[in-house]
Amino acid sequence: MTRTLDTESTDAATVVSALLAGLPGRVQTAAAVLEQYRRDRSGQVSEGLPLAVVEASSVEDVQETCRIASAHGVPVVTRGAGTGLAGGGIAGPGEIVLSTRAMDRLLRVSPQNRLAVVEPGILNAELNTRLAEHGLWWAPDPASREISTVGGNIATNAGGLLCAKYGVTRESVLSLKVVLADGRLIKVGHDTVKGVTGLDLCALMIGWEGTLGVIVECALRLRPIVRGPVATIGAFFPSVEQAAAAASAVVTAGWTPAVMELMDRRTLECVGRYTGQDLLARGDALLVVQVDGAGALTEADAVHDLVMVAGGDAELTTDPVESARWMDLRRQAFPAIESLGTLLVEDVAVPLDRMSDMFAHVRGLEERYGVIIPTACHAGDGNLHPTFAFRGETVPDEIWQAAGEVFRYALELGGTLSGEHGIGLLKRRWLGDELGEDQLDLQRQIKAVFDPAGLLNPGKVFPDGDGRRRHAPS
Amino acid sequence: MTRTLDTESTDAATVVSALLAGLPGRVQTAAAVLEQYRRDRSGQVSEGLPLAVVEASSVEDVQETCRIASAHGVPVVTRGAGTGLAGGGIAGPGEIVLSTRAMDRLLRVSPQNRLAVVEPGILNAELNTRLAEHGLWWAPDPASREISTVGGNIATNAGGLLCAKYGVTRESVLSLKVVLADGRLIKVGHDTVKGVTGLDLCALMIGWEGTLGVIVECALRLRPIVRGPVATIGAFFPSVEQAAAAASAVVTAGWTPAVMELMDRRTLECVGRYTGQDLLARGDALLVVQVDGAGALTEADAVHDLVMVAGGDAELTTDPVESARWMDLRRQAFPAIESLGTLLVEDVAVPLDRMSDMFAHVRGLEERYGVIIPTACHAGDGNLHPTFAFRGETVPDEIWQAAGEVFRYALELGGTLSGEHGIGLLKRRWLGDELGEDQLDLQRQIKAVFDPAGLLNPGKVFPDGDGRRRHAPS
Repeated sequence: MTRTLDTESTDAATVVSALLAGLPGRVQTAAAVLEQYRRDRSGQVSEGLPLAVVEASSVEDVQETCRIASAHGVPVVTRGAGTGLAGGGIAGPGEIVLSTRAMDRLLRVSPQNRLAVVEPGILNAELNTRLAEHGLWWAPDPASREISTVGGNIATNAGGLLCAKYGVTRESVLSLKVVLADGRLIKVGHDTVKGVTGLDLCALMIGWEGTLGVIVECALRLRPIVRGPVATIGAFFPSVEQAAAAASAVVTAGWTPAVMELMDRRTLECVGRYTGQDLLARGDALLVVQVDGAGALTEADAVHDLVMVAGGDAELTTDPVESARWMDLRRQAFPAIESLGTLLVEDVAVPLDRMSDMFAHVRGLEERYGVIIPTACHAGDGNLHPTFAFRGETVPDEIWQAAGEVFRYALELGGTLSGEHGIGLLKRRWLGDELGEDQLDLQRQIKAVFDPAGLLNPGKVFPDGDGRRRHAPS
Repeated sequence: MTRTLDTESTDAATVVSALLAGLPGRVQTAAAVLEQYRRDRSGQVSEGLPLAVVEASSVEDVQETCRIASAHGVPVVTRGAGTGLAGGGIAGPGEIVLSTRAMDRLLRVSPQNRLAVVEPGILNAELNTRLAEHGLWWAPDPASREISTVGGNIATNAGGLLCAKYGVTRESVLSLKVVLADGRLIKVGHDTVKGVTGLDLCALMIGWEGTLGVIVECALRLRPIVRGPVATIGAFFPSVEQAAAAASAVVTAGWTPAVMELMDRRTLECVGRYTGQDLLARGDALLVVQVDGAGALTEADAVHDLVMVAGGDAELTTDPVESARWMDLRRQAFPAIESLGTLLVEDVAVPLDRMSDMFAHVRGLEERYGVIIPTACHAGDGNLHPTFAFRGETVPDEIWQAAGEVFRYALELGGTLSGEHGIGLLKRRWLGDELGEDQLDLQRQIKAVFDPAGLLNPGKVFPDGDGRRRHAPS
């Protein structure tokens, strides 16, 4: 399915010439520029430099790139800000990088229709800053929001801290304009909240990781900025099991916090060291809950009581500075863990009532493999990030083995390989374990409908034989 | 793509024998039974009796039916409660009806995970009655909820009155078990809120109208029953334009009512006659707004003020009996309109700030075509139901022509052919106008991936040549 070109060959030169001629001023071929497209934030690095980078600034640029790639049978890797955590946007030898990062315009805001139309390269946080002037808000809130693009958020169906209450990215996208592999432009979805006209290709394209086409315009569903007070409950627990049980009790009692984050002992250790606090003196696990909206104060009292009953040493605050201090403990988790070495950040999701099983499993793996695996968790939606730290750029085999055990156990619990980061290169070999061969085969055939020559982000997502060879960590 | 069998032929007898042998006790062939499957609530009637009805009571029954149909190349029409409004579930000569109505078990409720697992035949209202015992609620709320199945709601991505606040059906489905055309069973989606593992086939299958497989089990995302007071604002306006402007003002000001329903003069005329009240003495249009949740009372006051400023004669109540009286005016709209004759209920959705343009267009059509077109509207999401009344069972050509103008104008406004009823038979010929040939072709190819022999609900949704011939209204 995938095709590659040797950068040294005449073919490669022909393709680059065609790009330079068809897209004057948009094509970069300098090694120093190409080098940065070999990696993203996953720790994965491609085997070598891609052919060229097209810095698209219009729909026509994207169409022309796809037409040229298609005519020459050259793979295209669409790229936003390169903040992916699964290797979905890295490019290697023989591939064209199609960057939509410079297509970053906010084309339209309609408070009347709670809709914004944007180009895919706009940063999530920048969009939200501009929407705030209208009292509006685009809900997807990945931890990377300051540095990740709306197009990338859509390509991975990005999650974040707010999903249990405010939904995943899919629920905040109305329609998309998409350039197909051969350069044709289509529009999928509806600019209205409702719409049922044949198969829902817009939903199909959210979380596709660049395998079916190139997003060039997005109509986003907005929400009014949440009114009313915000309250935060921070609670230390003697054990992560008790903290998970407390989170579960909050959900079971019918409350839906905006944020409910859980950190285990390993994470607290790192954050404590990073911020110069002795967090472990206060407990082995931390649960931070934030509630918002008109009923926030009632909800906060109820959550506080539930958390205390569950064994937590809990504080409730409505002070913004105090609130921010609690939230910062969570936000600093990854910078803090990074001090341990290179990271492999995993991303399983499990049913809420199995979160403590997963924490216990991870602890067992730490013992058996002799590694430490700090694990933070979006406890409102069961999404855990067991994070493996190691030295060097290449993920050691035993870390892959331990990660494989995490994936398998997540599936055993009725969960999934990936809650919000996607499959990319990192989890291809386990995809079939979750989907089964029949579904995987249907997915491959759908991919072939959109991209019969297999030119869009080849070797990503689908566990095809040759992808790993081409993209082995260097 | 579609294949038919003559009921009189040996082939038909062979298929029926195979069904009787493979599915003992599940197969009905009596004409009186078959007759009811020729129609749904759309007013469409198939050309004649289908071959047989399989009343499946298990996943295995569905698989066996699909295997037999596949082996003999016979079309299968999946059927729930038959409440569809677009002809998507009607069956004719040479077709097997596969009814999943008897598969109506609530298999599991998990308050810990806010999840219910059900068979597709359970009625929406019955499910919600049983969930209420757990303080839980499945949000999809089509007007047909008392008589429509969860499987049917999913197959049409059903909407209803609550979508602007609580989402469409797609946002309340986690995963599905689906039998493919050849009898294989797959599971798509994730039982967790988050999940990104390859292409989102679960989302693709919501709103598919039975064209890609047969749903046999559904994991549903539940919400806690909404706490706090409920308030209702009823407001009569001198004109429907003013009422639409008031609805728009509510949204623009950042409020999100649970319900916001708008009725035009024609509708009020019918409802007034039906309920013995002189509603037209109070105004030419009625807006009913219902707000709920912790902030309901504040929101109610704000909405009341906005509606008054917009020229409404408004009443605000928190009394449940008074509230119910306002809501009943809306609920009685269709029974009331039915007294006019046979109905063709249309279902366009337009951007909120274009609702009054659509009302004006409909009024223009009334004049030009000399018909009356009562129109009610879910004003929180721009979904209008222009309803054409006529005598007899067959939709007259001039009604189709007027309906075609409604569709075209909806598209011109940036809207859609169908907000919540689907395409079925009724709107096939306009589907290409909305999707364009490129997208339609992609949809057809995806259909062929799942159902290469074209046996699942042939002639529905896709504007193929022969479907209309086989399913012309009789």
